[in-house]
Amino acid sequence: MPATYRVVVEYDGTDFCGFQFQPGLRTIAGELEAALSKLFDEPVKVTVAGRTDAGVHASGQVISFLAHDRFPVERLALALNTSLPNDLSARDAVRAPDGFSARNSARARHYRYRVLNRRSPSAFGRRFEHHEHRALDLDRMRAAAAPLVGQHDFVTFCGVLPDRGGTIRTLHAIEIAGAGERLELRYAGVGFLHRMVRILTGTLLDVGAGRTEPGAVPAMLAARDRRVAGPTAPPRGLCLVNVVYDDFESYSS
Amino acid sequence: MPATYRVVVEYDGTDFCGFQFQPGLRTIAGELEAALSKLFDEPVKVTVAGRTDAGVHASGQVISFLAHDRFPVERLALALNTSLPNDLSARDAVRAPDGFSARNSARARHYRYRVLNRRSPSAFGRRFEHHEHRALDLDRMRAAAAPLVGQHDFVTFCGVLPDRGGTIRTLHAIEIAGAGERLELRYAGVGFLHRMVRILTGTLLDVGAGRTEPGAVPAMLAARDRRVAGPTAPPRGLCLVNVVYDDFESYSS
Repeated sequence: MPATYRVVVEYDGTDFCGFQFQPGLRTIAGELEAALSKLFDEPVKVTVAGRTDAGVHASGQVISFLAHDRFPVERLALALNTSLPNDLSARDAVRAPDGFSARNSARARHYRYRVLNRRSPSAFGRRFEHHEHRALDLDRMRAAAAPLVGQHDFVTFCGVLPDRGGTIRTLHAIEIAGAGERLELRYAGVGFLHRMVRILTGTLLDVGAGRTEPGAVPAMLAARDRRVAGPTAPPRGLCLVNVVYDDFESYSS
Repeated sequence: MPATYRVVVEYDGTDFCGFQFQPGLRTIAGELEAALSKLFDEPVKVTVAGRTDAGVHASGQVISFLAHDRFPVERLALALNTSLPNDLSARDAVRAPDGFSARNSARARHYRYRVLNRRSPSAFGRRFEHHEHRALDLDRMRAAAAPLVGQHDFVTFCGVLPDRGGTIRTLHAIEIAGAGERLELRYAGVGFLHRMVRILTGTLLDVGAGRTEPGAVPAMLAARDRRVAGPTAPPRGLCLVNVVYDDFESYSS
């Protein structure tokens, strides 16, 4: 009878072709499954809390997997880190209750989108923030974000439509925090559609820059048409920072 | 008569062999001087506020240089950024008063040293923070830092001795700010000796980990001997964040 494991992982997504395994490409699932299969000496398949696209980062991603109890769990994170590349690391590996799924047991996910708002780019932050050179009005962005919170059909803000489960999602909060030239858009929700955070961000940035009116958002939701939303913001600014379960959160300061 | 220019620059120091020009090596001065010499169509030599070692970063470095007024200064940062590599960028290029020197006119420099304090490494922060897996007591570190503030002979905390100018320096403040697993040591001072911030940091981390007593610091200063201080902390955690002049600071949020 195999045991269930839960591991928090972090990665700099810059040099990965996203989370999901794709033969011949460098993916996070591919690297994790290769390392885990070697450690447990059996084929291991991982389940992930939030599938991230190419170039998107995670500081609090959660995976779960089934494997026979051949390896002491207290040494699992350390052993994994010796075989993982240095842009992907593991922490907090534990045995989880039978039936635990990193994806289905998750109650909420928190994403952060970092923006550098000034004319010149920053070499220092280039892997982890989006450079927006238009001047942004944060109050306009906050006004536009307010009607997005709650349960809505977010199909307007969806990239590839899901196979099943529909496009209704619940957003708990959108917080827009600014400190001078750097701002963060923080999203908390039960679950997110494909590219939803990046499309919301691209839309809010257009509002902040004066290209779209804050009052246009409810009509965007009602239109149920991707073409009325703003552009998809680039992946580099996005990071999955926390996944919330009944008895655990993956956030790291 | 050449004009004086002042430019704020930022870099991810990971892939540079430090600031100072070295023939055949990839250095920050080398890249800047090549780009500036091309733009101004004459050989340009830069003066720097804080020379940084290999692997050390800057978000608010300042350089100055002399060049004939052939290029409109309002387009200088943009033009520089098109020829600089993407781990080095320019902002806030201005004409400075004659006689201005990024180095000699500076009144204070602020450095930040970032530490990840937990057992497992972080793929997300690996370029910009030092991974310290020993548990740290921040109150012990603050007690050890207090007697370092003020004017002292810091030769104990110096790598290569300076050719001239002696080893007495003035530290305005050391702040140790912690938020869970991540902490920052912030240093403000008039000027710093070679590797001084990293040796101070290595010493304070040893105190935090219980290897050295906080009360040992005054005797270290008095010993005037590099061998009594702690190890040199790795470069990746260090960043020059601000240089203060009479009428200008280079800090960016």
